[in-house]
Amino acid sequence: MLSVAASRLGYKTHIYEPGANPPAADVAHACTQASYDDQAALQAFAASVDVITYEFENVPAAALDLLEAARPIRPNRRALAVSQDRILEKDFISGLGLAVAPYAAVNSLAELEAALARIGTPAILKTTRLGYDGKGQARITTPADAPAAFAAMNGAPAVLEGFITFSHEVSVIAARGLDGSVAAYDPGENVHKDGILSTTTIPARLSPGLRSDAVLLAARLLNALDYVGVMGVELFVTAQGLIVNEIAPRVHNSGHWTQNGCAVDQFEQHIRAVAGLPLGDGTRHSDVVMENLIGDDIEKVPAILKERHAALHLYGKAEARPGRKMGHVNRVVAKS
Amino acid sequence: MLSVAASRLGYKTHIYEPGANPPAADVAHACTQASYDDQAALQAFAASVDVITYEFENVPAAALDLLEAARPIRPNRRALAVSQDRILEKDFISGLGLAVAPYAAVNSLAELEAALARIGTPAILKTTRLGYDGKGQARITTPADAPAAFAAMNGAPAVLEGFITFSHEVSVIAARGLDGSVAAYDPGENVHKDGILSTTTIPARLSPGLRSDAVLLAARLLNALDYVGVMGVELFVTAQGLIVNEIAPRVHNSGHWTQNGCAVDQFEQHIRAVAGLPLGDGTRHSDVVMENLIGDDIEKVPAILKERHAALHLYGKAEARPGRKMGHVNRVVAKS
Repeated sequence: MLSVAASRLGYKTHIYEPGANPPAADVAHACTQASYDDQAALQAFAASVDVITYEFENVPAAALDLLEAARPIRPNRRALAVSQDRILEKDFISGLGLAVAPYAAVNSLAELEAALARIGTPAILKTTRLGYDGKGQARITTPADAPAAFAAMNGAPAVLEGFITFSHEVSVIAARGLDGSVAAYDPGENVHKDGILSTTTIPARLSPGLRSDAVLLAARLLNALDYVGVMGVELFVTAQGLIVNEIAPRVHNSGHWTQNGCAVDQFEQHIRAVAGLPLGDGTRHSDVVMENLIGDDIEKVPAILKERHAALHLYGKAEARPGRKMGHVNRVVAKS
Repeated sequence: MLSVAASRLGYKTHIYEPGANPPAADVAHACTQASYDDQAALQAFAASVDVITYEFENVPAAALDLLEAARPIRPNRRALAVSQDRILEKDFISGLGLAVAPYAAVNSLAELEAALARIGTPAILKTTRLGYDGKGQARITTPADAPAAFAAMNGAPAVLEGFITFSHEVSVIAARGLDGSVAAYDPGENVHKDGILSTTTIPARLSPGLRSDAVLLAARLLNALDYVGVMGVELFVTAQGLIVNEIAPRVHNSGHWTQNGCAVDQFEQHIRAVAGLPLGDGTRHSDVVMENLIGDDIEKVPAILKERHAALHLYGKAEARPGRKMGHVNRVVAKS
């Protein structure tokens, strides 16, 4: 979707991907299939492009070092480092005076027990480096769960996070240009199923004050990181205001609605930012409900094709597996 | 844009193009660069795909014969033949009882003089096979212009067309599916400059009765041709009703607005039709003004990038030349 947006602006894209047959190769000028430790391939790739961006946070640091020596990487390495490590991320966010859930670094059972005494239960223990879809996580309901939870980390550095009471989750998709300008889309309201985003509804249920808070908060994060590109910021809505859940240094699933709700979608916004073009404004022309098509949901496609006002986006993945995102549908309705 | 729409539905595309470096190759799974008389390349191309479509009417018949022996070509050959020949086109349209400008086949100066006596001046003499952008055309202001106009045809079969008085031009972008269902977008109002489409404004100025006539008329044309795919139908609005100017058996420049005005745009609609999927409905969610960027208009891009509500679509063409379509911009406004 980034590649398609780039083509719409007259740019050619070159995809670097270790896996076989990436769908992006079917809408790109060139594709290099090589591992992240193939230095010759990385160098040839960097030499062929003007600017490098990514939609996957876990590119190894050594590969990024090599690429960055040749071409700018946007968003920058600091944004990537912060988002790859849950402790760095929470330290960074709370260091800006923004609210996060209570947390503590955990490198031993003793540290875990001390953290539990402070934060309380229920809580969740997570490896600090990114797992996803619930991997590398252990829920702690009573202090007696601590030894098993610590064992589940397999010795990896971990972070204990306290539970917070929230009414719903929203996200802000915001962008910062090379010139420092910031533009944000209207916040969307997210519903997860089995730990995976299921739907995003625009507009989110938010008071005007919280809506404004959400956008200002995203702008602070972007500015503090000297960020260039699109960022997804997940927020919990609580009685005490907004709490930052996590940030993603890339286009975000909860921003897919912009494809059918805005003149400039999040993919084009990201390309504009990393290419040094002016940002588009984030005003929506329509309300949208985005629904992910996960695993067997692909069987809904024939019915979706017959729906009025439904814009279908399939990813060209060869095989449907449980939990695998196969596509999404944006249902467009008149602006409220 | 067809290739991008196909990718959104999970399809891979293979482009066949005689020219070097076609922009479509940058958003396609594969590209064959070969001439239309390279039989081996045509055969290999046909063998690699499930269905063949086109966005250029002047593919030689011999190439189409070869391709059609291997795979279905949609829209069908009859639609292509009719649109390639102005006499066949006008005979076909008027044969359905639809209004066209007065016309007569001209193969000699005597026939031209007889036709002028019947149709009157001013009139325009055109080669029957497609020229474009005013090529192969001679305007006749008085009967004395006849010899020069006839000589300008260089012996090619020609058609004399009478001028008609019209208030404005509109077009209907309509589609017919493999199952015979028909869907039409809201008619757009076209303004040309120097014989090239400049803007399309949605909605067009049309009474409800003429709006309905326009859509029904497009459906009759599609059904009569057993057409599969998107067709553009250009219409003159006159005091006596709608007069058909011409039909184009493909996605049409005056339908580019659908990219930012509808859940399913004309490109996806065409892919849906030729792939045998259900058609999307043509309801617009927003009003749009489409402006072509022609030649030097490409210099407007920096300003357009800063405009609110402007969706930019560039074609990735290497060089701007006078009269060359470099891209377009859709300006999205709330639905009226």
